[in-house]
Amino acid sequence: MSLDFGRTLSRIRKDRGLSQEELAFRADLHRTYISQLERGLKSPSLDTIERIAKVLQLRASELIRHAEGKLR
Amino acid sequence: MSLDFGRTLSRIRKDRGLSQEELAFRADLHRTYISQLERGLKSPSLDTIERIAKVLQLRASELIRHAEGKLR
Repeated sequence: MSLDFGRTLSRIRKDRGLSQEELAFRADLHRTYISQLERGLKSPSLDTIERIAKVLQLRASELIRHAEGKLR
Repeated sequence: MSLDFGRTLSRIRKDRGLSQEELAFRADLHRTYISQLERGLKSPSLDTIERIAKVLQLRASELIRHAEGKLR
C-alpha cells in the first residue's frame, strides 16, 4: 500500500501544481520525508495523511481511496 | 483524528465481537498497541490501518471514513 500511496500522492501533488517543497512547507513536514513517502519508503501516520490531505483539499479517507484505486 | 479513529476502532471491533487480544493476534500487533490506538494515544501508520481494516473486513479508506463520521 505504501508504494500505491506514494504514487498517488505524487500524481495528485502534481495535479495541484505543487512542488515537493511547497507541499512539505504547507503540511509542516520535511521535503525529504515527502520524497520518501512518494517513493513508498515510508508508511505515513494517520496524522500525517490528514495534514497532507488538507493541503490537497481532500479528506484523509479520499486520499487513501485514491491510493486504493477507487477514484481517478 | 487519532481519538476519533480510536473510538471508531473500539466500536467496530466490538461490533465484530472481537476482543482487543483477538484483533491484535489477527492483525499481528500487540494488544497494548491496540489499547493505545483505541485511547487515541497513537496515530497508526497506513500499513497498520490496513492490517486492522483487513481483520475488520473493511478497506483502509472505509475505516478512516467511519472515523471521519461519514458512515455509521
